[in-house]
Amino acid sequence: MSYQQLEAHQRQIDRLQHLFAICGWDQATMMPEGGSQARAEAMAELEVLLHAKKTAPEVGDWIAAAEGESLSAAQQANLNEIRRHWQDARLLPADLVEALSLAGSRCEHAWRRQRQENDWAGFAPNLGEVVRLSRDVARLRAEALEMRPYDAMLALYEPGMSVVKLDQVFGDLANWLPGLITEVSERQRGEAVLTPVGPFPTEQQKALGLEVMSLIGFDFNHGRLDVSSHPFCGGVPTDVRMTTRYNEEEFVSSLMGIIHETGHARYEQGLPREWLGQPAGEARSMAIHESQSLFCEMQLGHHPAFLSLIAPRIRAHFGEQPALSAANLARLYNRVEPGLIRVDADEVTYPAHVILRYELERDLIEGRIEVADIPELWDAKMQQWLGLRTAGNYRDGCMQDIHWTDGSFGYFPSYTLGAMTAAQLRFALERDLGEMGSVIEAGRLPALFAWLSAKIWQHASLLPTDELLTQATGETLSPRWLRRHLEQRYVGK
Amino acid sequence: MSYQQLEAHQRQIDRLQHLFAICGWDQATMMPEGGSQARAEAMAELEVLLHAKKTAPEVGDWIAAAEGESLSAAQQANLNEIRRHWQDARLLPADLVEALSLAGSRCEHAWRRQRQENDWAGFAPNLGEVVRLSRDVARLRAEALEMRPYDAMLALYEPGMSVVKLDQVFGDLANWLPGLITEVSERQRGEAVLTPVGPFPTEQQKALGLEVMSLIGFDFNHGRLDVSSHPFCGGVPTDVRMTTRYNEEEFVSSLMGIIHETGHARYEQGLPREWLGQPAGEARSMAIHESQSLFCEMQLGHHPAFLSLIAPRIRAHFGEQPALSAANLARLYNRVEPGLIRVDADEVTYPAHVILRYELERDLIEGRIEVADIPELWDAKMQQWLGLRTAGNYRDGCMQDIHWTDGSFGYFPSYTLGAMTAAQLRFALERDLGEMGSVIEAGRLPALFAWLSAKIWQHASLLPTDELLTQATGETLSPRWLRRHLEQRYVGK
Repeated sequence: MSYQQLEAHQRQIDRLQHLFAICGWDQATMMPEGGSQARAEAMAELEVLLHAKKTAPEVGDWIAAAEGESLSAAQQANLNEIRRHWQDARLLPADLVEALSLAGSRCEHAWRRQRQENDWAGFAPNLGEVVRLSRDVARLRAEALEMRPYDAMLALYEPGMSVVKLDQVFGDLANWLPGLITEVSERQRGEAVLTPVGPFPTEQQKALGLEVMSLIGFDFNHGRLDVSSHPFCGGVPTDVRMTTRYNEEEFVSSLMGIIHETGHARYEQGLPREWLGQPAGEARSMAIHESQSLFCEMQLGHHPAFLSLIAPRIRAHFGEQPALSAANLARLYNRVEPGLIRVDADEVTYPAHVILRYELERDLIEGRIEVADIPELWDAKMQQWLGLRTAGNYRDGCMQDIHWTDGSFGYFPSYTLGAMTAAQLRFALERDLGEMGSVIEAGRLPALFAWLSAKIWQHASLLPTDELLTQATGETLSPRWLRRHLEQRYVGK
Repeated sequence: MSYQQLEAHQRQIDRLQHLFAICGWDQATMMPEGGSQARAEAMAELEVLLHAKKTAPEVGDWIAAAEGESLSAAQQANLNEIRRHWQDARLLPADLVEALSLAGSRCEHAWRRQRQENDWAGFAPNLGEVVRLSRDVARLRAEALEMRPYDAMLALYEPGMSVVKLDQVFGDLANWLPGLITEVSERQRGEAVLTPVGPFPTEQQKALGLEVMSLIGFDFNHGRLDVSSHPFCGGVPTDVRMTTRYNEEEFVSSLMGIIHETGHARYEQGLPREWLGQPAGEARSMAIHESQSLFCEMQLGHHPAFLSLIAPRIRAHFGEQPALSAANLARLYNRVEPGLIRVDADEVTYPAHVILRYELERDLIEGRIEVADIPELWDAKMQQWLGLRTAGNYRDGCMQDIHWTDGSFGYFPSYTLGAMTAAQLRFALERDLGEMGSVIEAGRLPALFAWLSAKIWQHASLLPTDELLTQATGETLSPRWLRRHLEQRYVGK
């Protein structure tokens, strides 16, 4: 049966991608600088080989034949995903795939140092090469899929998403978010928030992080936690590689970063084992992935009841001080303050960081702006949204993120789509299990994660996004749940 | 030109082997238990793919055509190595390669726990499967290369070596080594050796190890040190992954283990960069590799002058105590004492461990004994050579080594061939640079390593072993230099 041949073929691809994922993790966490050139070449070689495997002529024949075979609904969903990945892969010539992989590895590796040194002049030519190749990718995809170039990039991360829909949901946010930021800022103006006094030794932060990962169900038999300059969640579902970074001056952002990545990790660890290695067994989309990490971070991690739960553990590691009371931690974590760094942003100002990047990368990919224009536009948009200047401060401005360095244009919107989804999931979960605070206080975290597993993780890519969300929450994506969540938490509406 | 096509083909193979090496290192150092099944499958998949690449039909045509092309001496040496690897690869069917890779991964992974639990009953069936498949390998190789089965395995690690030659050099050792062991034991009987009193914290041991690695020239821009249950030196020449293991009760064996692996690492890091990625740019053989690690460990590391050099660093980490004087460290490291564990053995008794394993694996591969016979034979040979019993103690007996778990039959002789080579190199080096002690005392370690680089590292596989050794020392391998070294160091002859 052709369908069986497709499954065997996908299993081979998955196994080679396993090695790619582990070596990519190693590149970011373990590899010494001098190993970078050979590693980049080795990974590009595998990428070319994977590309050849994905686009092998017989795959098209098997797909055509499988369409006439009698398949279960799940097999049919798998076939749909196989077809989508196959179409994605064959759009690009092998030399473009290799060139982008090499340029991306070089740009990303050099960026690690360049960012520290605020070296825009060194970074810009590397980024320029990545943009040039990414535009080729976008153009080829756009022509074949009959979409505008940026939509063709979005489809890589968020099948079904488009500039039209994004402008709609982000436009909705633009209507109420600036006002909410102002309102929250005024409400919080008189609030006394104590800053925890360090130092907070790395070893203690790591031990605390591991405890909190256990509390929220990370399976250490199928994963681990390490350090990288830009935190991520990689590896494979049976061996999830989470990373964080530590700053001994403060533990607050690293701890919540760990909680965020644990959300990604639990989704990966919770994917249905019987579908591992097949496209239908993969995470649904980047927005759904971010919905799981942001559920953990924002809906759960920032919830005052959760902070009450972990406050004693925090004090056990860092000693007693008034700033580490549950009440102060809640004020600290729910402080709304416009800042330069996306990953450190509170959930109210976070969408501003995303919309800014979305507008820039959309125009960059579609050729309306150039790399050289980025710093000035970044500065202007940061002023407009958050009233902050970044001129000359590339490190905390347009060089702060890893995403563009390897050509992941089209990814950023997923963060805010994920935040909306997480809020929507939370209100649906509360209909089934009761209000979050009482779920946490009753020690019912396992029930909470079992709900996410049943509604999201177990479905992997067996359903399209709209159907997945409708089954879980009763409707497709709507920004009104994020608005309700933010207004409830921050202005008590 | 066909030769150029062969070089490009080898570069591809080398890049994929890079990923295999890093994932193999990760498997031993980082991977959680739950990741083992998927990793074994992924690595087997790549092994099959590499096998297909190495045996692609066009390679034979390119080799035949390249033989008629005008090549430099180095290109000709590379072509010879390419031909040898190609012949090695095409001898085996892909399904046997895959089966052995899977069985080896499973056996090795389970062995990590089984060894701790002294679980011979659990280990034996896994090893039996590896032996069964390795015998198939040996038989197929023997038929094609017209050699006896064990010679066909030796050729994988030590081209040109044979049972006949091994019986000759090991026979030479058997004539004088037992007498020397007795003589040294008697001389050392009255010697007072103080045992350093711990604990020796892992962090301090690691810091000391890193310092000593720096002292002997390890390049941390192209490598790192981690922990695994069985120390090894892996990775790739531009990113060498060394491992060790720590025991807080004593630092002596871990420190010398690090020095040993650093010898392997410097050889890899010192291979000629212009030949990286080609077979002629690889280490010459396992015996030559062991000669470099044993030169570092035994000729250099155990030398009283070297121990004088590092004694102050040792005391800086672990505090002052009489056992850490240079003189006591020299007595400690040069103590000859029959023991159960090969990797902890002194250099006088070490060959006994190797000859025992050589005799067992030779007979195992050639079907004269079975896995079930190993424990009893191990016990008998340990009694005969070193007067020690291992009955029932599998952990410190036949389950102590990793080599057999993944089918590396034919490797063990390399250790003692390497010890002989290291001794031979030392006397040649002394003719050029002066006596080792004065080289060390004069701070001329860089000159010592420059000599090894010029004589060994830079030649990679550009010369056959006999020629390499003759150029370096004036003659082919002879056991008399090891005898002279041991008699000089241990009985003052």
